[in-house]
Amino acid sequence: MGILVLGGAGYIGSHMVDRLVSLGQERVVVVDNLVTGHRAAVHPDAVFYAGDLADQDFMRQVFKENPDIDAVIHFAAYSLVAESMAEPLKYFDNNTAGMIRLLEVMREVGVKSIVFSSTAATYGIPEEIPIRETTPQKPINPYGESKLMMETIMKWADQAYGIKFVPLRYFNVAGAKPDGSLGEDHGPETHLLPIILQVAQGVRDKIMIFGDDYQTPDGTNVRDYVHPFDLADAHLLAVEYLRAGNESRAFNLGSATGFSNLEILEAARKVTGKEIPAEIADRRPGDPDTLIASSELARDILGWKPKFDNIEKIIESAWAWHSSHPKGYDDRD
Amino acid sequence: MGILVLGGAGYIGSHMVDRLVSLGQERVVVVDNLVTGHRAAVHPDAVFYAGDLADQDFMRQVFKENPDIDAVIHFAAYSLVAESMAEPLKYFDNNTAGMIRLLEVMREVGVKSIVFSSTAATYGIPEEIPIRETTPQKPINPYGESKLMMETIMKWADQAYGIKFVPLRYFNVAGAKPDGSLGEDHGPETHLLPIILQVAQGVRDKIMIFGDDYQTPDGTNVRDYVHPFDLADAHLLAVEYLRAGNESRAFNLGSATGFSNLEILEAARKVTGKEIPAEIADRRPGDPDTLIASSELARDILGWKPKFDNIEKIIESAWAWHSSHPKGYDDRD
Repeated sequence: MGILVLGGAGYIGSHMVDRLVSLGQERVVVVDNLVTGHRAAVHPDAVFYAGDLADQDFMRQVFKENPDIDAVIHFAAYSLVAESMAEPLKYFDNNTAGMIRLLEVMREVGVKSIVFSSTAATYGIPEEIPIRETTPQKPINPYGESKLMMETIMKWADQAYGIKFVPLRYFNVAGAKPDGSLGEDHGPETHLLPIILQVAQGVRDKIMIFGDDYQTPDGTNVRDYVHPFDLADAHLLAVEYLRAGNESRAFNLGSATGFSNLEILEAARKVTGKEIPAEIADRRPGDPDTLIASSELARDILGWKPKFDNIEKIIESAWAWHSSHPKGYDDRD
Repeated sequence: MGILVLGGAGYIGSHMVDRLVSLGQERVVVVDNLVTGHRAAVHPDAVFYAGDLADQDFMRQVFKENPDIDAVIHFAAYSLVAESMAEPLKYFDNNTAGMIRLLEVMREVGVKSIVFSSTAATYGIPEEIPIRETTPQKPINPYGESKLMMETIMKWADQAYGIKFVPLRYFNVAGAKPDGSLGEDHGPETHLLPIILQVAQGVRDKIMIFGDDYQTPDGTNVRDYVHPFDLADAHLLAVEYLRAGNESRAFNLGSATGFSNLEILEAARKVTGKEIPAEIADRRPGDPDTLIASSELARDILGWKPKFDNIEKIIESAWAWHSSHPKGYDDRD
């Protein structure tokens, strides 16, 4: 057996590869175009290809050189909401059209299992909290739309070609490898916790909190946080689930607990011992009040048990990375 | 001004090109990859390019050589429901990914108006009859999904880049140019009226009617028929609507009247004077009982007035084509 990790040089993908290599049970092949990923984040024992999953000749070659690959884990999508509003075609091209082209090659070479990153953004303004897998999916930005299209296309590819799939709908991902060797390094950084920690480091002056008049206890957005180690675990369980011959099925991945932006800020002050100046700014378009996942299905069916089950552990791990890597992977031009 | 017709060698596209050329008001440029279209169906006074709209270098060249193009009419999608169930990736690739690639080039060259074929199939099993533009869109096959994705992608491309669009959601298209020079020639043929007329011609033995136990007056499916001449008219009005600076908007195109499959058969017997043997077969998956459009919006806002306003006129025109072209355009290998 062998596994192909697309986007394995990215934030979550690199944790996945690290986990798979450390298990040592199968060949781990990584494809990443390094547009947002970092070569240094890829475990040296993985087989690495620099290239784009939408390049079908390249992908045919990867499968040909690694005939033991029987499952694909796909993290290679763009994922910034605000960028997707400004550049929707970039998202539909890379995420949606990329999935079509990938599936065409998987069909040709006969690889019939894929686990991929979907997102809480497919639910838009959710009709219920906690959000279940059956909550209606009504995205409110091109990022969420592009991921919902990926799920829809997979549904029909399963019906026609028997390619089985598990979309994992992540909530807010945060944290790093506790030894500080793998972490979050986006350019530009737009996520709450990394920016808070950059303020703690003195790299930025202050954190902007967008809106304090939401329908939440303290008025700031409430989100559900999950650690990339636990996400990697869920992907591994999902691959096992498909390899065991089960039917395609979507799962939410979250903690069933929500933290407001101000609660995250307070927890980060406590973990880092720094003041971390903050300022309330205007709301951004498209932020739902509260997003909290029910992940009962993942626990019941996949047997998923998140290990980073409190927010301070998540923040401590992120701080280990940020304090040892003030410039991230430091591989930018 | 100039207009680009994608899929202008196809059934509906060729009627569009014929109409535009006969009006003589602007340059008419046609792109068709001739996979399902016929070179002989393209009016000789149109500028013709054989090529694929997903080939971006080719499309850049077409726009460069025809800088007067300010609007695009897009008919170049695959449209067979049953084929889409068996080959969904073909539909998502050509229809959905093709639209993404087309929009990227339109954005580059600054062409900001597009009218394109959408379909009643985006409504799936409709929640109300007649179907309005506000009826929820819930496709039940990859063809309908691929077209709904095209509409969704356009919505975001409008918001981000100001590319204005009109999706025209056709109901059942039937009929031909009354002089018999342009008509329907699909390979393979899967549509009701052409097959009925091929039986009348003696090219086939009998027509199969799929299911007679639907919730309709005579038990066979009820559909709303519209003539390609009237569709061409609606596209022309939609281009004028966008050129006048109006906002993007979808319109249904149908007659607000339904005919059952058996009623179409009876009308064809009357028009042709032939017996036309028929046989009731099993239902096909995915056929809703009844599809009837409300086209009030197209009439009120675009000023659309269909001329082929009764089913016998539509069948007479189709018979003019079939009886003079027993082998269609006769250009197959």
